[in-house]
Amino acid sequence: MFHIVLVNPQIPNNTGAIGRLCVNTGSSLHLIKPIGFDIDEKAVRRAGLDYWHKIDLHVWESIEEFMDAHPIKERFFFATTKTDIPYFEHEFQEGDYLFFGSETAGIPSEILEAYPKQTMTIPMTKEGRSLNLAISSGIILYEAIKQNFNSYRKMM
Amino acid sequence: MFHIVLVNPQIPNNTGAIGRLCVNTGSSLHLIKPIGFDIDEKAVRRAGLDYWHKIDLHVWESIEEFMDAHPIKERFFFATTKTDIPYFEHEFQEGDYLFFGSETAGIPSEILEAYPKQTMTIPMTKEGRSLNLAISSGIILYEAIKQNFNSYRKMM
Repeated sequence: MFHIVLVNPQIPNNTGAIGRLCVNTGSSLHLIKPIGFDIDEKAVRRAGLDYWHKIDLHVWESIEEFMDAHPIKERFFFATTKTDIPYFEHEFQEGDYLFFGSETAGIPSEILEAYPKQTMTIPMTKEGRSLNLAISSGIILYEAIKQNFNSYRKMM
Repeated sequence: MFHIVLVNPQIPNNTGAIGRLCVNTGSSLHLIKPIGFDIDEKAVRRAGLDYWHKIDLHVWESIEEFMDAHPIKERFFFATTKTDIPYFEHEFQEGDYLFFGSETAGIPSEILEAYPKQTMTIPMTKEGRSLNLAISSGIILYEAIKQNFNSYRKMM
């Protein structure tokens, strides 16, 4: 089982698709405020997210609150375009935390600078700039699942 | 370089995100009609898809037209929930065609039945039903890229 951590997500469709990804993979979803949309029950129902209540969802008031609640950070991995480490060079383990920044700003630079060896990027052509947040989450989460597929298979 | 083939896509946001994925990975995008939205220049401009003109885009009138134009089908791979073959058990090669069905109907069953060894699925928990089309495309395309990363690296 893995944790997906979205830092300040802005676009509800992306978080919705990632929520579905989490349900489908037995992953937990952490949303760190500020968030660019409502996630109260009414808003979720209006968006037709019938699987939303199945998500193991954790909402945090700030990145500081999240960091304080998780004193051991060795198994945190941060997705960013500002590193040369391809995501598939990391050896993931069950229980790892996979962080993704907001669609506009990415993960705050002070965090990237504090954990340079725990950064990861999705390699792209020079023509490319960035990938959709939900697609990026799926690519990296499934690499982690694939690396741990023997233990993961029991859930399938 | 890979080919993404979307059979009868219905949701413009998904095709938009997959188009961006294609630009970012040097992949070609094939859209097979009928399509559930407009892809004329005006509609694309209205949707703010500023990268759309960079896509190596091919639009086909029907699945028959596509199949007739591609007599050799050995390197076609079909994503579906109706197979037991995980996508990462295939050995992908540059130039492979990765097929994804519509959000509602998937790939037509007669195609799946004609090429059973060329099907592939993204393993999910029993709780899960299906993944977002754009996320699925990203997961499988990046597995193919990872398997061919040494030759792919030149484009990066």
